[in-house]
Amino acid sequence: MTQTCWTLTDVEGGFDQPEFVIGSGDVPGTPPGWFVRKQTLRCGLQDGVEIVEINNGRMRLTVLPTRGMGIWKAWVDQTPLGWNSPVRGPVHPKFVPLTEPSGLGWLDGFDELLVRCGLENNGAPDFDDNHVLRYPLHGRIANRPAHRVQVRVDAERGEISVTGEVEESRFLFYHLRLRSTVTTSFHSTGFRIHDQVENPSDVPTGMQLLYHINFGAPLLDAGAKLVVPAKTVVPRDTRAAEGIDTWDSYLGPQPGFAEQVYFFELLSDKSGRSRVLLKNAHSTQGVCLEFETEQLPCFTQWKNTAAESDGYVTGLEPATNFPNPRSFEQQQRRVVELPARGQREFEVAVNWLLDADAVAEAEKSVQRLKAGQKPTIHKTPQPGWCMV
Amino acid sequence: MTQTCWTLTDVEGGFDQPEFVIGSGDVPGTPPGWFVRKQTLRCGLQDGVEIVEINNGRMRLTVLPTRGMGIWKAWVDQTPLGWNSPVRGPVHPKFVPLTEPSGLGWLDGFDELLVRCGLENNGAPDFDDNHVLRYPLHGRIANRPAHRVQVRVDAERGEISVTGEVEESRFLFYHLRLRSTVTTSFHSTGFRIHDQVENPSDVPTGMQLLYHINFGAPLLDAGAKLVVPAKTVVPRDTRAAEGIDTWDSYLGPQPGFAEQVYFFELLSDKSGRSRVLLKNAHSTQGVCLEFETEQLPCFTQWKNTAAESDGYVTGLEPATNFPNPRSFEQQQRRVVELPARGQREFEVAVNWLLDADAVAEAEKSVQRLKAGQKPTIHKTPQPGWCMV
Amino acid sequence: MTQTCWTLTDVEGGFDQPEFVIGSGDVPGTPPGWFVRKQTLRCGLQDGVEIVEINNGRMRLTVLPTRGMGIWKAWVDQTPLGWNSPVRGPVHPKFVPLTEPSGLGWLDGFDELLVRCGLENNGAPDFDDNHVLRYPLHGRIANRPAHRVQVRVDAERGEISVTGEVEESRFLFYHLRLRSTVTTSFHSTGFRIHDQVENPSDVPTGMQLLYHINFGAPLLDAGAKLVVPAKTVVPRDTRAAEGIDTWDSYLGPQPGFAEQVYFFELLSDKSGRSRVLLKNAHSTQGVCLEFETEQLPCFTQWKNTAAESDGYVTGLEPATNFPNPRSFEQQQRRVVELPARGQREFEVAVNWLLDADAVAEAEKSVQRLKAGQKPTIHKTPQPGWCMV
Repeated sequence: MTQTCWTLTDVEGGFDQPEFVIGSGDVPGTPPGWFVRKQTLRCGLQDGVEIVEINNGRMRLTVLPTRGMGIWKAWVDQTPLGWNSPVRGPVHPKFVPLTEPSGLGWLDGFDELLVRCGLENNGAPDFDDNHVLRYPLHGRIANRPAHRVQVRVDAERGEISVTGEVEESRFLFYHLRLRSTVTTSFHSTGFRIHDQVENPSDVPTGMQLLYHINFGAPLLDAGAKLVVPAKTVVPRDTRAAEGIDTWDSYLGPQPGFAEQVYFFELLSDKSGRSRVLLKNAHSTQGVCLEFETEQLPCFTQWKNTAAESDGYVTGLEPATNFPNPRSFEQQQRRVVELPARGQREFEVAVNWLLDADAVAEAEKSVQRLKAGQKPTIHKTPQPGWCMV
Repeated sequence: MTQTCWTLTDVEGGFDQPEFVIGSGDVPGTPPGWFVRKQTLRCGLQDGVEIVEINNGRMRLTVLPTRGMGIWKAWVDQTPLGWNSPVRGPVHPKFVPLTEPSGLGWLDGFDELLVRCGLENNGAPDFDDNHVLRYPLHGRIANRPAHRVQVRVDAERGEISVTGEVEESRFLFYHLRLRSTVTTSFHSTGFRIHDQVENPSDVPTGMQLLYHINFGAPLLDAGAKLVVPAKTVVPRDTRAAEGIDTWDSYLGPQPGFAEQVYFFELLSDKSGRSRVLLKNAHSTQGVCLEFETEQLPCFTQWKNTAAESDGYVTGLEPATNFPNPRSFEQQQRRVVELPARGQREFEVAVNWLLDADAVAEAEKSVQRLKAGQKPTIHKTPQPGWCMV
Repeated sequence: MTQTCWTLTDVEGGFDQPEFVIGSGDVPGTPPGWFVRKQTLRCGLQDGVEIVEINNGRMRLTVLPTRGMGIWKAWVDQTPLGWNSPVRGPVHPKFVPLTEPSGLGWLDGFDELLVRCGLENNGAPDFDDNHVLRYPLHGRIANRPAHRVQVRVDAERGEISVTGEVEESRFLFYHLRLRSTVTTSFHSTGFRIHDQVENPSDVPTGMQLLYHINFGAPLLDAGAKLVVPAKTVVPRDTRAAEGIDTWDSYLGPQPGFAEQVYFFELLSDKSGRSRVLLKNAHSTQGVCLEFETEQLPCFTQWKNTAAESDGYVTGLEPATNFPNPRSFEQQQRRVVELPARGQREFEVAVNWLLDADAVAEAEKSVQRLKAGQKPTIHKTPQPGWCMV
């Protein structure tokens, strides 16, 4: 009997493997060139961070159990697919002052390709009437370590998966459990996320989840475009409103550029699936995200085309809500209600497109969703969408 | 000469043993079956937590040097004696945002059988007039690591002890030192705590200490009773007042149950010793706490008979004060004054009763303290006791 | 080819040496008796702290990469040169609640001989109009770990150097990089610091830096004197004003002594170099600091002659500013403006004087700077200097 599942961490069972590696020699029937490796980083801000590297033979992904199963970086054929944050990560949560009074400490650890914002809240910090922090920026889950991590290799389907379980719990206040799986096919240039968020409690609770997926150079460049099947586009604030006429195209690096954020309602196909494409100026490279609008009804675009040294980046953010303070989103009924013992599933697929044909194909696929519909583009922030 | 004392940690001397074990073969004249073992946990929220397991041949205790010498869990003959918190501990202090603006971060690490609340303060968070946190919920000591840990085995007295020193110090503001010893006799079903709290400073200071001792199923069940030699009983707030007529009995797990807290003045015997008993519905099992009312004049009962998944538990809490915000307790003169270089001693014994006879015996012993006196039971929160 | 440079930590390159030692046998042409050694401390508050010990054959220095390259302690011929803090350090940043709402968490880790206060701010905590913490006491740099550490031995110049790089960065908010080198000559009784602070960003930023250099017994004693080439002396507050007539002399340990702080403008020589001397009551021992007044125009004296148990200590603090809240210093234009990609250099030399001749020589050297000028000594706090 061939082993197809390996446990890297099992806190309950008192088991962990600080160093681990498997490759094609370990699983009959798999192609050469793939491996999965776990290390624990030392020194600097990354001291103690566990990192699981998945190399599918063509694409490499680094998964961070210590940071809520976020995906730190990815490469295809040596080309980096993420962005360069001025933060020197991956940063261990012990160096992230998540709940400092400003609520902005999360930014000290922000350098991932894909980071989950949630689970109790995401979005801007939320304060009570006495200016005491109630919910910190983008929530806690990205700074909580997994208590269980497993690797699976399925020779028949040709897939490698890493699953991790992470909890966000405060006695008497909240308790949410994430079971997250990232899967990639051998020699592919993409991955998909399957997340289950569970309320293990016997009282109902609320949850929010936003996938903050971030791309910089070389994919992002002057003239890069976001192609989305928009039904509605809303600028978050006056700063975003300034740029509403060019919301779908990107500048090159601009020292001192102040971020612009747009909120979207997206169209989907009959099965509820939607798709967005980010492509470079020459339409020769791109990345495509796919997700279900019923699971993730709110889409946010974050444009931060600052200087390369300050983080030249755009965030594409499928989510259960818009990243406003939680109490505002609650008023708009954009907090997911989880009954006692209830759970929700979320899926996002990310695929890199490495030539003009693949980009054109993806663009057509988005156009098909639009089916000729013109989006409603609001020139100013809208009530119900934005804190105006 | 036989060794009877082992140093596990000595920060001053630059010495520590990450892994350690001794057993009956190491100390002539001791019965078989006991051992003491130290490990350092890895991964998840427990990453880096040191744990010392004492197995006296019948009862196992796990002591947490990394969490202020708290007692994580205990078992007699494989039966767990504590409770099941929704927090997946033991949680390393680096994951506990003790001083977040809400003052409630302590709850992120709360899953122990016995946790000390102190030393500068315990009780509800305390804020200044500008709503800036002054004292966090239940203080800092449970999230400070010991700098010295020793094990002693006394073959003559038939005892195993673990001693740890922990400090709570902020330059210019506070400096308190705990020297804590937990002792258990071979093959017994109980342990006792002997704590010394010292002011190593040349200026006077104040201190508070509360033993948060927590029990769940199977001991706690529908119909379980708290038997105490009460002189006075006071509900903490209107929620507690709702249940004042049944303060001494427990419900089974109730999803959504909101906690109820009662404050007590207890009677003691001539030597100042008092005793409380928690017994199950059928009086076939119980646990008995003993302490001196001069050392620990305030007793608090915390009823949290929520669903098992949310922490079905009661806390029995002998203390120097009631767990109100420190500034309120200060007004009531329930903060212990420690002169320069002064110190105080505190003792608590915890014994499990495993059959009806032992329970009946303990109940009689509590009744003797009452000597027929009827307690004064207040129906509503009282000034001087509660923040009403 | 002889090795003269060793890398101890290189986070970028995925390299670190948890344990390391080199000595005179490793570098031809160096005298016997010196060594450099790195360890990682375990348990207590120091768990995980990396410490680099430099022994030049006569003086030992301990450098703390984990605490922003501070200098923990020093000894000459077994005599300790620092002070005894009630804090049991060196304290790992994970145990320092830097940004707790009070802004005072920095004090939990304060026990070094030399600690840098900065880089975004130093000085008293700064709050916004809603009493929300904006800048914590003395900034973040002392609680950030180095991501690169190197040792250099120069046989020709007869010097040992340790260089570390540390960053203070929050995405979108601040980004400052410290490149710090401490150098000592073989068999000398002093060291010098060379710091470069860089703005790696493409937008301008501000910075502050204060060297908090702290001395206690046996050097500090009743009758010890501070000899400085003062042009102006200003008491920080009414408490300091009480002692203005004796600002330059020290008491022995006084239980309950409340700190006194004085601000100075200093004279320098033609090349801009200034010098201050702390000497004991009998002028038989001393320590001399040298620095450039253009780099570090503000000098602060901190008198904390409390009981030995509470930290009997004086701080001598050359800085870019006075340790007032940053917003106040900003108004006084005492925040250093760093243009995009800009940088500043800072140098401080610390030399111990071990006999009366050396002390007399240093005193003459300070007197020469004064050149007979009388300082302006203000009896009360002054606008522009103090928050009065």
